[in-house]
Amino acid sequence: MAKEKKLVSEITSRDVDFAKWYTDIVKKAELIEYSSVKGCLVIRPYGYAIWENIQRLLDKRFKDTGHENVYMPMFIPEGLLNREKDHVVGFAPEVAWVTHGGSEPLTERMCVRPTSECLFCEHYANIITSYRDLPKLYNQWCSVVRWEKTTRPFLRSREFLWQEGHTVHATAQEAIAETEKMLDVYADFCAEDLNMPVIKGKKTESDKFAGAVSTYCIEALMHDGQALQAGTSHYFGDGFAKAFDITFTDKDNTVQHPHQTSWGVSTRLIGGIIMAHGDDSGLVLPPNVAPVQIVIIPVAQHKEGVLDKANELKQRLVNAGLRVKLDDSDNSAGWKFAEYEMKGVPLRLEIGPKDIEANQCVIVRRDTREKSFIGLDNLEQSANELMAALTQGIYDKCEANIAARTYTCCNTDEIIDALSKNGDGFVKAMWCGDEACEDAVKERTGVGSRCIPFAQERVSDVCVCCGKPADVLLYWGKAY
Amino acid sequence: MAKEKKLVSEITSRDVDFAKWYTDIVKKAELIEYSSVKGCLVIRPYGYAIWENIQRLLDKRFKDTGHENVYMPMFIPEGLLNREKDHVVGFAPEVAWVTHGGSEPLTERMCVRPTSECLFCEHYANIITSYRDLPKLYNQWCSVVRWEKTTRPFLRSREFLWQEGHTVHATAQEAIAETEKMLDVYADFCAEDLNMPVIKGKKTESDKFAGAVSTYCIEALMHDGQALQAGTSHYFGDGFAKAFDITFTDKDNTVQHPHQTSWGVSTRLIGGIIMAHGDDSGLVLPPNVAPVQIVIIPVAQHKEGVLDKANELKQRLVNAGLRVKLDDSDNSAGWKFAEYEMKGVPLRLEIGPKDIEANQCVIVRRDTREKSFIGLDNLEQSANELMAALTQGIYDKCEANIAARTYTCCNTDEIIDALSKNGDGFVKAMWCGDEACEDAVKERTGVGSRCIPFAQERVSDVCVCCGKPADVLLYWGKAY
Repeated sequence: MAKEKKLVSEITSRDVDFAKWYTDIVKKAELIEYSSVKGCLVIRPYGYAIWENIQRLLDKRFKDTGHENVYMPMFIPEGLLNREKDHVVGFAPEVAWVTHGGSEPLTERMCVRPTSECLFCEHYANIITSYRDLPKLYNQWCSVVRWEKTTRPFLRSREFLWQEGHTVHATAQEAIAETEKMLDVYADFCAEDLNMPVIKGKKTESDKFAGAVSTYCIEALMHDGQALQAGTSHYFGDGFAKAFDITFTDKDNTVQHPHQTSWGVSTRLIGGIIMAHGDDSGLVLPPNVAPVQIVIIPVAQHKEGVLDKANELKQRLVNAGLRVKLDDSDNSAGWKFAEYEMKGVPLRLEIGPKDIEANQCVIVRRDTREKSFIGLDNLEQSANELMAALTQGIYDKCEANIAARTYTCCNTDEIIDALSKNGDGFVKAMWCGDEACEDAVKERTGVGSRCIPFAQERVSDVCVCCGKPADVLLYWGKAY
Repeated sequence: MAKEKKLVSEITSRDVDFAKWYTDIVKKAELIEYSSVKGCLVIRPYGYAIWENIQRLLDKRFKDTGHENVYMPMFIPEGLLNREKDHVVGFAPEVAWVTHGGSEPLTERMCVRPTSECLFCEHYANIITSYRDLPKLYNQWCSVVRWEKTTRPFLRSREFLWQEGHTVHATAQEAIAETEKMLDVYADFCAEDLNMPVIKGKKTESDKFAGAVSTYCIEALMHDGQALQAGTSHYFGDGFAKAFDITFTDKDNTVQHPHQTSWGVSTRLIGGIIMAHGDDSGLVLPPNVAPVQIVIIPVAQHKEGVLDKANELKQRLVNAGLRVKLDDSDNSAGWKFAEYEMKGVPLRLEIGPKDIEANQCVIVRRDTREKSFIGLDNLEQSANELMAALTQGIYDKCEANIAARTYTCCNTDEIIDALSKNGDGFVKAMWCGDEACEDAVKERTGVGSRCIPFAQERVSDVCVCCGKPADVLLYWGKAY
């Protein structure tokens, strides 16, 4: 029988071809499937379930910090997109244009939202009149479209799912505090729920969001040493408010422009999870977002009592709050082991006649493959302990990867040397603040500026590029 | 101070102008705001929170019946839309066309999905090969676009939020069972969570979904006697499978086309809630989907101990699993009463110094305005009992409205007479099965066919229109 079934195919090793390894995983772990719509993906049940967990956990963090969800139209009329000058310059080249409704041409063409600042601003202009209406702390879960030339599953696609927070505040101070708070929410989420430590920092001027005064970001490091911008939080000042004529009457009866922020993360985070934690056998999923946290595989399941016991254990673990799957299909145990390894299920529980006799089961950790014999009396506690150990383990591994792949450099030769000896990674180096130096470093070494980290150090007194005095520490790296 | 605040404005009475009453409510209860995108709406926090509750409750029902969520691209290339003949004829006239990506014209234009059969079918053709792959029970939460000429908030807009289930089965029998099961899921949800009883039935041939073999529907009756199609469930046979070349190898090794279904409900349900339960003071929300289930209004809140007690009661009710809001703003109590009446909060709890002394509070039901003095010792139990009574009360009121507004008629004169005497409602009448009679009845009386109810009766032996022998009972009515 087993021969008829799909066998888990080999995937490319990470060391041989990391890009191919990534593409193999997203397909073979059944996260996505390609469609005939170029650059757009089908997110399959297993991939979408990860996104649902991300949404649920982030949404709770947003609501706990006072935010409310709303829904804006998906279209932006061209005139509305043109209202904020920097914004339109940044986004117009990569939008999809709707020109016809049914058989009739539109009087004004509309783009599918690449982001929704324009729509939020128009709405805020309608509903805000007094300081009593502030702050407005809104968030939206939706899909957006950016007409990218080259695309990669989750990392860069023409349509992607995300959330976009848009807030309005009476003062610059409050808006800046919000921008920082939401960056912390993202960083905490990445650390605690995705078990992926990130660097918090500020983008340089050349790397800011179109229309922002300043852009903060979190940068994660992937297994191959390339960086991933995992989330951004923007402070807008009152630029959008002026462009969209948003005003409020303050306590002292003066009319003022409010200060705004926006912040977002997307399905890109799934790409981050894959590349931060995955190994040559497939996915390794953080327990908090894993669709299945523990899979039960009955051994010799045709023998009397095995399936009954497996079902009983499943019920106990479900009652303990875990997401559990019992695979009692007629595939071989070996096939099942390979399948759930590929899918990155954190724990695998095996139970057979001999285990039942000994009142125990076997639990195997996905990350270390460590095998434990677990007495059934304390099953729930043991499963939770192993899950916590795995959670810590994959976090530590990521952190160690960052430590091993962060190179402190004083000039561009040192950068070239460090990268060629140790492979890609974060480069910590001083910068004079000149955009020409940013460009020159990238030209010479291949690494661009990632962010000005909040945790500043003084690793040298001069710019890594021009040798002039420099006060700013910058993280550099290749990025997805 | 209170004078400075927004006062709840009067809304039009339902009896004076039901359409105006509806528009007043959606705006003044802050469910929606208009945008400059014609026919598209901003769904505001209070409106979106209702949708989130609908999503959560329905999603659980879908998952409990074995369905999984996925996400498909939002675009359909024209060639793909053209694959199923009836489907394209039905939808092409009302789609929005994307013709450019950035500044470049597309080689093939794409529409924004009006529904996603084409995309699901293309995907199913890719992933289904064997009977072992069946059934596929997928659902998608997303927004869709239909270029309607006339629009109304929630009831008919150019973009709306919905879910669309798409399933694939080995046999016709299984697919038909799924179609019926999901109609039951919808009907149960409407009754139990929206407290809105519905009629289950089948659409006539002229009213089927474009591409379906048969369309089932649930029809609700609004306060004004007009019907609302609240959800549909379609059986496709193997028509889409043939058009999209979806095949599977059956147990006996023959290659076959599978049978498919699709089913959906949308933000239209919010329109149903408004028009089924609302009254001249505003919304009346079913407790299961109300963003706030009980609002606490402190009386003489400046007096010592009042706010402390109000907060304590809030915490107790939250702990009991209720969604609670304490309004301790400096608006007057009168303003607050009006505000939460307008917003349809099921229960209002008042607590002041005298109540505290007497160890009691006042709870007022939104539907009947009944006032109860509740001992604080049993607060949770009493609140839950009043909530259950309101839930049953608004359901019974809807059911009574259907009973009072359902007219059994044997010919078109009786229909005209019943409607003019009693106002709009459901007409129960026999039908010979001829489409010409459907059209003629609508022409003469203004009511169109709603559905062939599953609960058939024989109210006469002849067709209400042509007088020839008739076996089929039809529900007729005006519809939103």
